[in-house]
Amino acid sequence: MPLQNFQYKGSQLHCEGVPLRAIASTAGTPVYVYSSRAIRDNYRAYRNSLAGVPHEIHYSVKANSSLAVLALLASEGAGFDIVSGGELYKVLRAGGAPAKVVYSGVGKTRDEIKYALEERIATFHCESLQELDVLKHLAREMGLAPTVGLRVNPNIDAKTHPYIATGLSEHKFGIALHEAESIYRDAKEWAPLQFTSLSCHIGSQVFDTHVFGEALRQMLGLATRLGDAGVAIRTIDLGGGLGVGYEADQPSVSIRSYGRMLSEVLRGTGCCLGLEPGRSIIGQAGTLLTQVLYRKLAPKKTFVVVDGAMNDLIRPALYRAHHEIVPVSRSDGPRTECDVVGPVCESGDFFATGRSLPPCAAGDLLAVATAGAYGFVQSSNYNSRPRAAEVLVEGDRFRIVRNRETREDLVRGETL
Amino acid sequence: MPLQNFQYKGSQLHCEGVPLRAIASTAGTPVYVYSSRAIRDNYRAYRNSLAGVPHEIHYSVKANSSLAVLALLASEGAGFDIVSGGELYKVLRAGGAPAKVVYSGVGKTRDEIKYALEERIATFHCESLQELDVLKHLAREMGLAPTVGLRVNPNIDAKTHPYIATGLSEHKFGIALHEAESIYRDAKEWAPLQFTSLSCHIGSQVFDTHVFGEALRQMLGLATRLGDAGVAIRTIDLGGGLGVGYEADQPSVSIRSYGRMLSEVLRGTGCCLGLEPGRSIIGQAGTLLTQVLYRKLAPKKTFVVVDGAMNDLIRPALYRAHHEIVPVSRSDGPRTECDVVGPVCESGDFFATGRSLPPCAAGDLLAVATAGAYGFVQSSNYNSRPRAAEVLVEGDRFRIVRNRETREDLVRGETL
Repeated sequence: MPLQNFQYKGSQLHCEGVPLRAIASTAGTPVYVYSSRAIRDNYRAYRNSLAGVPHEIHYSVKANSSLAVLALLASEGAGFDIVSGGELYKVLRAGGAPAKVVYSGVGKTRDEIKYALEERIATFHCESLQELDVLKHLAREMGLAPTVGLRVNPNIDAKTHPYIATGLSEHKFGIALHEAESIYRDAKEWAPLQFTSLSCHIGSQVFDTHVFGEALRQMLGLATRLGDAGVAIRTIDLGGGLGVGYEADQPSVSIRSYGRMLSEVLRGTGCCLGLEPGRSIIGQAGTLLTQVLYRKLAPKKTFVVVDGAMNDLIRPALYRAHHEIVPVSRSDGPRTECDVVGPVCESGDFFATGRSLPPCAAGDLLAVATAGAYGFVQSSNYNSRPRAAEVLVEGDRFRIVRNRETREDLVRGETL
Repeated sequence: MPLQNFQYKGSQLHCEGVPLRAIASTAGTPVYVYSSRAIRDNYRAYRNSLAGVPHEIHYSVKANSSLAVLALLASEGAGFDIVSGGELYKVLRAGGAPAKVVYSGVGKTRDEIKYALEERIATFHCESLQELDVLKHLAREMGLAPTVGLRVNPNIDAKTHPYIATGLSEHKFGIALHEAESIYRDAKEWAPLQFTSLSCHIGSQVFDTHVFGEALRQMLGLATRLGDAGVAIRTIDLGGGLGVGYEADQPSVSIRSYGRMLSEVLRGTGCCLGLEPGRSIIGQAGTLLTQVLYRKLAPKKTFVVVDGAMNDLIRPALYRAHHEIVPVSRSDGPRTECDVVGPVCESGDFFATGRSLPPCAAGDLLAVATAGAYGFVQSSNYNSRPRAAEVLVEGDRFRIVRNRETREDLVRGETL
């Protein structure tokens, strides 16, 4: 199953050494459960596979911004890739070092840029001339000389879902290669900005790693041309996007092979490689645990109604994403084709349709796999549903790292 | 434009008597703005058009559950259609009467049902045998005799978006007509439940009102057969779903004609008609006000990057919904084809693609129309973005009815 460090011991599904049943009984359902060891292992796989070349790994905070997850990664030495002032705030609250933070995104506000300058983050990945202009003026006012890397659009087709493909010139991201090159050549005009970095990100859920090699070679070529023109590029940030398996029989891309392939391309160039992994660190490290409320036989279908819903995990509705669903108590009974749906009042509220499931009845627990990334972070209060709790497992112990919201939370900040 | 009580006065777009520019300058952006008068007018249009027949109007809370909006409707005498314990809590906080609350939804938990029984709500719309069983046992324990209406699935094709069509037997909602009929006939077995209501809901955004007439006639036929069998049906709840215009040239269904048509069908039957309007009350009563951050010229496109994003309004990404976008300061300059996109780091974060817009530059304000329903209620903290503020306008005055979230709100309930 596409989960790391989740396995059956006897009939019971465990995360590391903890039975999921015990977590549900303490924390209630729906609840997100993450394996510390999986997160740590994935981060270390990046670090170890790149040991032979200068590198910086910035965890992509948007994938899962739980403070506990950020703190775990900070303790491993990770840097952070942020896309908002809110993410910077969370990184700092979790003990992350601002000197290891890079800031990406097409819509940084003036206030957010100011905040990031005040905190002395490492690098701004800029995506438009107007953004560069705002950054330049703020840096001058504040007497700072921030490091900048333009996000270059290499126009590589990553062959993934249109919502998460980002490297084509028709996308809102990045700056076209030739335009970026001319900005770098005019770097002096942008003083006090320091153009010592280059960045790109071709998309998410990329399984053909050759396109990453191609992107890196394009970036190295640009760095060489710029070096010849007197603009020294120190770091090439290749973004994230490594493919993660969601289907039962779909393996994730090997982080180790990926890192080694990039090391080969990079070796001898003197450049430092930046990576921004998110899903490949946390995706298979997490599950959404939910309880069956009702089993409903309709004329043409069997519905398993669970207490988790699209407000908790929107990926099936938003991306038509597939998530494996497995019972927490293993059963060998006959399988039935079911739709697994939530309580939210729209037909788009489903976790799975036409899925073959072992027997499950009201009260049973189900684990929705590969829910560590883009799960809780996209959750809402739709249908006035309090948001789920989050739990982090470490060996034989677990702790609630985010309390389930209460009804009072639903009206916070409101006045009649 | 598909907004009610929003109009230009001179060059400035107003909501009722208030310039939107003034709201942005007080409340910041992005911000949701609602017109009290539009909400009141729409509610009254329902009430007046049904004046000749017994009726109950339950506002569908899921469309927009702002306490201020709920309080406004409660003061008009509206009842409420809820789909969760959280919505019941909000209705009560807003001063709604529990005796005018009906509770719908496929996934009511035991705790939620108990809470609704304790508060003595009017009617439970039940959707499965297992749910009926839970309700029956709780009612017995608590010594109560709640009113129940089965949600009957009339198997009518409402011809709308698959996510919001709900009346087909392949959907998770409701109980098939023949199965419902046999449950009603066995009503005595379900004591102390009182089966005096019937409910259905064929879907949302229905423009062909004949299907509502057809559904009502089906329900009346069932009520007659049940009456003959000794089961007296007092109320038929027809749900909501009236089509609301989103495109510039797409008129909404007239509430008045709709109410009159239903009155005709109902007259003389002695039945009380329940309706559950949501979008048709609040959809065109609200806008999402957002500011342009950057104008970005890419090789093949012009991007207008605004400070609102898919976390604020997910309808374009989730349903591929069209929302008109108009400038707050009217301009007669030449129009350009633009993509209007937000700061969230995915290509799915757009409000409009290939849209012809008048000149707009960084700092300009844009109004995203028809954002009153399924707007704020579906918003999330994705990309660690604090959620928007909400403002209610009343004549020449406005007030902030929900404060913009702060960075501190992003970590509420979290521990390291």
